[in-house]
Amino acid sequence: MTTTINLALAGCGTVGGALVELLHRHRSAIAIRHGLRLEITSVLVRDTSRARTSALDPALFTHSLDGFLRAPAHIVVEAIGGLHEAVHVARSSLLRSQRFVTANKTMLRVHGPELAALARAHRIGGASLDFEAAVGGGMPIVRLLRQSLCGHGLTRIRGVLNGTTNYILSRVERGRTFADALADAQKAGFAEADPARDLDGRDAADKLAVLAWLAFGVDPSSLDVHTVGIDAERASDAVAAAARGRALRLVATAHRVGNRVCARVTPRVIPRAHPFAQVRDEENLVQLESESAGTVTVSGRGAGGSATASALLADILRVSETLS
Amino acid sequence: MTTTINLALAGCGTVGGALVELLHRHRSAIAIRHGLRLEITSVLVRDTSRARTSALDPALFTHSLDGFLRAPAHIVVEAIGGLHEAVHVARSSLLRSQRFVTANKTMLRVHGPELAALARAHRIGGASLDFEAAVGGGMPIVRLLRQSLCGHGLTRIRGVLNGTTNYILSRVERGRTFADALADAQKAGFAEADPARDLDGRDAADKLAVLAWLAFGVDPSSLDVHTVGIDAERASDAVAAAARGRALRLVATAHRVGNRVCARVTPRVIPRAHPFAQVRDEENLVQLESESAGTVTVSGRGAGGSATASALLADILRVSETLS
Repeated sequence: MTTTINLALAGCGTVGGALVELLHRHRSAIAIRHGLRLEITSVLVRDTSRARTSALDPALFTHSLDGFLRAPAHIVVEAIGGLHEAVHVARSSLLRSQRFVTANKTMLRVHGPELAALARAHRIGGASLDFEAAVGGGMPIVRLLRQSLCGHGLTRIRGVLNGTTNYILSRVERGRTFADALADAQKAGFAEADPARDLDGRDAADKLAVLAWLAFGVDPSSLDVHTVGIDAERASDAVAAAARGRALRLVATAHRVGNRVCARVTPRVIPRAHPFAQVRDEENLVQLESESAGTVTVSGRGAGGSATASALLADILRVSETLS
Repeated sequence: MTTTINLALAGCGTVGGALVELLHRHRSAIAIRHGLRLEITSVLVRDTSRARTSALDPALFTHSLDGFLRAPAHIVVEAIGGLHEAVHVARSSLLRSQRFVTANKTMLRVHGPELAALARAHRIGGASLDFEAAVGGGMPIVRLLRQSLCGHGLTRIRGVLNGTTNYILSRVERGRTFADALADAQKAGFAEADPARDLDGRDAADKLAVLAWLAFGVDPSSLDVHTVGIDAERASDAVAAAARGRALRLVATAHRVGNRVCARVTPRVIPRAHPFAQVRDEENLVQLESESAGTVTVSGRGAGGSATASALLADILRVSETLS
């Protein structure tokens, strides 16, 4: 028996487009393995005239936010990014007791607790908020913190959370120029057309704040993250570090000090044997220290459409199973 | 507002005892953070006369299985190990639509799909089956496979899954004798009084079969795992390996070949730079390869009462939240 689940998808860029491809490619596996037929019934885009994936009927695309929100859907998936429109989609979906799945770390940093409260308030009607794809792409860290480690008594988070800067640093240390490495990262779909948020550390700071919210219960929007990024000059230190058998990495850390949480994102020179030094290219890695279970380490592909779409799909499948 | 959740605990050995301690120590944190008061209302033990934790009223202990099963409980927690009694507790709990949480990998290998089907059949009444503690102790791998990675299209599992043999091998490579290293592992609470299942690879094979069930949907009881273990002679190879800059590890692998799954547990000599070689003492590490998201790696403390009890507590907290 196959249950049909209707999905409304906001955004069809690198991540949204990869999700459409993934759903298309794994159609029969999803039917066999999960008993689900996942149908996209509406796609919100800024410009419906641009070429989109051949896997979808062009009539499903709309640039009307109101039209998109009126489309009947069991699950609303947000991969449009940014704040304004994304928050509108999130609030509208949860207020109507819909399941809402998002990849939007910036929205969660600013509005996460509000949206979580909204999902809780409408839980009886069916509302839920899931966001495995918002931090770490294909590295499964969100549900881990929300569910698997809630008994561990976490004390510290440390990690490499930005795939673009890590891709650049690990290319520069092998001889590539900063500009070329950045261009490679953009071509591979890891970096945005405007990579400023990656390079200046804001992207990593947003992710760290979301993780600190999940691990320590702090409000991510009011968490002050001391942030230093990477530029061409700073990245050139990676060459000198490599020559000394070390590695330069953009490291994010957050730990509890009494009732406060101290958080920072800064480039650091790391001994070659340390796990952070072995994080290559777009990979992400997080170490979670706890009182009762020592250190848990997780790593995986931190950027790229396919890896991030896989995380969205995992949330969609899990939420769908509560519906079937 | 605090919700009281009654727990019935089967087994109060290394893991069950550590859970009682953890609940006692984190009492106020659990109340503040989760709004829950977790009360143990009955403890099933073989011998009520043996000295138990001071954190519990001695009147809560019983050796009567029927008495234990009659005790009213929102969640039944099984840390008694073995098959016969454990399966009876599991079936009785699920048939009465109770939430059931277990650390018992052997039971899941033999009866996992049957118990999962029972939980599904009684889901409306409230039954659920959770077992984060059954594989990997404090290394969070179970929920990861069940929920976070279900969109990734997994193709291969590889890992170090037995804390006791890894503890012995990493001590022997640093000069300790096999017998002393085994005695250390037993004293630290990683190895059972009878460590045969650890040493001959059956413990790792049970865990691998459970992971293969979650990743590939195969029946774990009929999965044939080619298994070779560790003895004093084999462990002495670790010294020679270390001298050549390598490491001996007991490696478990499972991968899909068409519709079949090939699985084995064998000692292997690993290059020092490989993640498996860097797994020390009781640590566990798993690499999960996927079609759409590359490799995900997870590591953590794979043995020990406190780490395993943390995994039980995580399941208990998550299940409790669906009750409150």
